[in-house]
Amino acid sequence: MSEAPRRGRADDATTSKPPIRDALVAAAFRLFVERGYEHTTVDDIVALAGVGRRSFFRYFPSKEDVVFPDHERCLAEMTAFLAHGGDADDPVARVCDAARLVLRMYAENTAFSVQRYRLTRRVPGLRAYELSVVWRYERALAGYLRDRFAGRPDGALRADVIAAAVVAAHNNALRSWLRADGEGDAAAQVDHALAHVKRTFGDGTGPRPAAAGGDERDDDVVVVVSRRGAPLWRVVQEIESTLGRD
Amino acid sequence: MSEAPRRGRADDATTSKPPIRDALVAAAFRLFVERGYEHTTVDDIVALAGVGRRSFFRYFPSKEDVVFPDHERCLAEMTAFLAHGGDADDPVARVCDAARLVLRMYAENTAFSVQRYRLTRRVPGLRAYELSVVWRYERALAGYLRDRFAGRPDGALRADVIAAAVVAAHNNALRSWLRADGEGDAAAQVDHALAHVKRTFGDGTGPRPAAAGGDERDDDVVVVVSRRGAPLWRVVQEIESTLGRD
Repeated sequence: MSEAPRRGRADDATTSKPPIRDALVAAAFRLFVERGYEHTTVDDIVALAGVGRRSFFRYFPSKEDVVFPDHERCLAEMTAFLAHGGDADDPVARVCDAARLVLRMYAENTAFSVQRYRLTRRVPGLRAYELSVVWRYERALAGYLRDRFAGRPDGALRADVIAAAVVAAHNNALRSWLRADGEGDAAAQVDHALAHVKRTFGDGTGPRPAAAGGDERDDDVVVVVSRRGAPLWRVVQEIESTLGRD
Repeated sequence: MSEAPRRGRADDATTSKPPIRDALVAAAFRLFVERGYEHTTVDDIVALAGVGRRSFFRYFPSKEDVVFPDHERCLAEMTAFLAHGGDADDPVARVCDAARLVLRMYAENTAFSVQRYRLTRRVPGLRAYELSVVWRYERALAGYLRDRFAGRPDGALRADVIAAAVVAAHNNALRSWLRADGEGDAAAQVDHALAHVKRTFGDGTGPRPAAAGGDERDDDVVVVVSRRGAPLWRVVQEIESTLGRD
């Protein structure tokens, strides 16, 4: 048990929720860093935060959940963002934008995110918990894409593959940034990674605004000449540079 | 505790490993189905299998592991398969072939795989365990691709995205098959899903054999005409049908 004084009462949470929640997260991380995740109990955390044990479980179902306090909120934001899209949205661009909500959550508190990343890499239970969170994000993206691709050949397959690719690209950039202790421009790195996905799977330009002077640009004809033996991805690169997209 | 008679001794495992291991898996699944995963203890399993508690932990680190008895072997096979590839292998085709090892493991025992699928969907702890297994497969594929793409621009990013796409496509087909109680041709469904990934990311033909009569086919010129406004994926579909690839 921690020797920190108890400064509050068990029912504090009913009167001022956010400060207590924040205090629990801060206390938990201080203890995780000082004595290790496995050697910290919920009792230790509530003692340091100065609240009762029941308060902890009012905010967090388990000790794992205090490590990822904002994922539920972020998942709800993502679900709402996807639900409010329209049929005119480019579906791949939409899921890329949805993934950026996760990056924003991490970037809101760089020091906390870096600390948590280090902790998660050391504690297998937390790693497993994080994978289940990532899986829920991926299913939210895939669910949206499955709706958008409904009725198309291989719609569900395409949805699952794109959702996985978006999550992988986002996490590739996010983890590089976390490994570099949060140095550098996380948003730019994630944008770069997601642009790669958009190039691979879709035009990524979203709905085009009505051009003054009509749609001549849309009606432009592009001719690509390629050797039959060239790998498809090289042909696609060639088209991209011909179309001037990046 | 189960009332099944104990037919063996605690040290059976030292003399005939595979039968005891199989007996433990069979006993565990019979109990999981009869009384539920959460209400089955390791003691119940060893009692039904007729072996001692120590035998169980000689084969399985935990109760979760008995649900996925073959993943370690499959992961080792996958790692070895990838390590034995050569520079001439098409990297995307190679990871697709590696993913097929997982399908083969599931298809070896359809009834067991279908039963496990139903169990895993009901028990959150098993779902989390399965996600960590899937993650290890994905990292094995990504590690191979990162080596193959080393030094290329965005090599690690491309590796992570392709590995995630391969796993998502494989699992899309695998889960459809499991949801259909193992009816239908699992291998054909997985082949179809992986062909989609190969079309998206690479030519998927691997190294071409030297054609009798020279390389005329490689030198064929393909002309694709497309409106500039068309989404890139539509252009790619057009090229694919022009090239006659599927």
